[in-house]
Amino acid sequence: MEETQCQDPIAELIVTYKELNGSTIEELYEEPSPLEFMRYVAKNTPFVVRGAASNWKATKTWSAKYLEEYLRGETVNVAVTPVGNADAPTPQGPDGSLVFAKPWEEDQQFGEFLNYVVQQEQGDSQKQQNTEVRYAQTQNDNLRHEYASLFNHVQQDIPFARIALQRDPEAINMWIGNSRSVTALHKDNYENIYVQIAGRKHFALLPPLCHPCVNEQRLKPAHYERSSSSSSGTEEEIVPPLRLELENDGETVPFAIWDPDRPAENATEYSHLAEPMRVTLEPGDMLYLPCMWYHKVSQSCSPEGICVAVNYWYDMEFGGPLYPLSNFVRSVSKMNKT
Amino acid sequence: MEETQCQDPIAELIVTYKELNGSTIEELYEEPSPLEFMRYVAKNTPFVVRGAASNWKATKTWSAKYLEEYLRGETVNVAVTPVGNADAPTPQGPDGSLVFAKPWEEDQQFGEFLNYVVQQEQGDSQKQQNTEVRYAQTQNDNLRHEYASLFNHVQQDIPFARIALQRDPEAINMWIGNSRSVTALHKDNYENIYVQIAGRKHFALLPPLCHPCVNEQRLKPAHYERSSSSSSGTEEEIVPPLRLELENDGETVPFAIWDPDRPAENATEYSHLAEPMRVTLEPGDMLYLPCMWYHKVSQSCSPEGICVAVNYWYDMEFGGPLYPLSNFVRSVSKMNKT
Repeated sequence: MEETQCQDPIAELIVTYKELNGSTIEELYEEPSPLEFMRYVAKNTPFVVRGAASNWKATKTWSAKYLEEYLRGETVNVAVTPVGNADAPTPQGPDGSLVFAKPWEEDQQFGEFLNYVVQQEQGDSQKQQNTEVRYAQTQNDNLRHEYASLFNHVQQDIPFARIALQRDPEAINMWIGNSRSVTALHKDNYENIYVQIAGRKHFALLPPLCHPCVNEQRLKPAHYERSSSSSSGTEEEIVPPLRLELENDGETVPFAIWDPDRPAENATEYSHLAEPMRVTLEPGDMLYLPCMWYHKVSQSCSPEGICVAVNYWYDMEFGGPLYPLSNFVRSVSKMNKT
Repeated sequence: MEETQCQDPIAELIVTYKELNGSTIEELYEEPSPLEFMRYVAKNTPFVVRGAASNWKATKTWSAKYLEEYLRGETVNVAVTPVGNADAPTPQGPDGSLVFAKPWEEDQQFGEFLNYVVQQEQGDSQKQQNTEVRYAQTQNDNLRHEYASLFNHVQQDIPFARIALQRDPEAINMWIGNSRSVTALHKDNYENIYVQIAGRKHFALLPPLCHPCVNEQRLKPAHYERSSSSSSGTEEEIVPPLRLELENDGETVPFAIWDPDRPAENATEYSHLAEPMRVTLEPGDMLYLPCMWYHKVSQSCSPEGICVAVNYWYDMEFGGPLYPLSNFVRSVSKMNKT
């Protein structure tokens, strides 16, 4: 392989990686030791541990009813979008050009929020299509703040990750929504341990070096706003609609616009080489999502109509070659386009 | 850093890596645990453990006299070159174009070999300049074969590496020579634990992503041959000279021709960005040389005129992104040149 002459280094990179790594996720049935985990970190390679969190109190108790009673009277921050597209490339204006759409965020009574999520999931599909989508997804360490009363229902950290990485989690986040919410393909500069509590999550994963496949573009920032013509919350049945506001003075956001589930749209010349690694998390499953991996996340609900997960973000290691090499792929890919 | 616009991705890569990693080697004073070692493997980052092998029987006993007595009567393979340039880019022919010069290899009585090495080191410098250089450096697991009788004077493996990497050493090699031998800048697809026994080794190290700095060229292969006009070994003082034979039918060898100790010669446009990590191993010191790192190795002798080291090669991990990304840097660098 060392001596292969190749016309296109980017295609060679993606193909060689696939040949050496495949695109099937490794499945474990017990948590790795810190050393075993560190071998995956060294390879920047995901794995799933089936049933790792089956015995967590959260997994055993967090039904919709339980959560509603437990958090009764509390107020939570909710991301609201018309079609479940928080932080997603979204067509805008007469020409349908893509902008980076951030959700409208508002505080809601937890019970009200949860009932909305459940009823939308269980309602008839016509009604579903026409109503806004609500997702509790503040990624600001919310499980140790906003949802602190629930924090002792999950592990305080992931011991194998804390010991291997020599650090405490930077953030622990709670995610509550229904099948209408989708998280668009993106990457984070964190080592991520993702734990499914209720419902299922469907991940499509791509390694950092697949940057040339994801069609990163600089998108104008925009955010949803609720019309101020009537006040929200007073008349429950008449919710003012959302409108997308362009942030004309805002800095553009570099973001992937290729969707692994609609591979023919917005493709680059390399997208066809990408073979997303796919994994579905069942309640109690734990996913190691290595730093800088692209991930698109969809969800299915539990029978009672919710999808709940928690994740642990650990700061990644910027030393070593992976971070600068990933940026190098991005730079070479950009040079090719211009 | 993420958003930096840069005209030259290769320069950005090398500079970013240096900013995030520096070029000073980490010094430990006790061997790492397997987990600690795995963190260095994950970062593909060298370290030295001062005195790790101070108490090995080899370190305590392998004087020239001891080795000579211990191996009396045994025959060893010796690499012979005119100026200590085994496996090195070497000017050849009227135009001085570089070829890849492999040493002449011949079997010698160990005592005869060792006396030659010692006397050359201790002789006057004029004589040194004019005599061939001999180096016992067969990298074919020689410490478990050719020098098997000495193998129980060193560790059978490096436990922290065996446990972390989950494999036994692929090869354990013995190196015996004097200060005339230099190993030219090159890289190996092995994780390498290098242990100094007698004398000192001076390493200049560069990470794999510095490929654009080292000026890899495809060199014609050549090897030294001893003239057959008189037979070797019969008249000890009249050794037939070496001549360099071009292998005209041989495949060219991709090899670095930039020398970090003569940085102005054979430089690429990126060589000036390389800041070699330098480390000198004293007797008993242990170096972790990560896979694919470029290394140039020079040596100084013990007072009695020898330099002895052993190294443990462990197969590297080809899974994960580092191997394909390192090849990608090489391919992009080659595209730029053509």
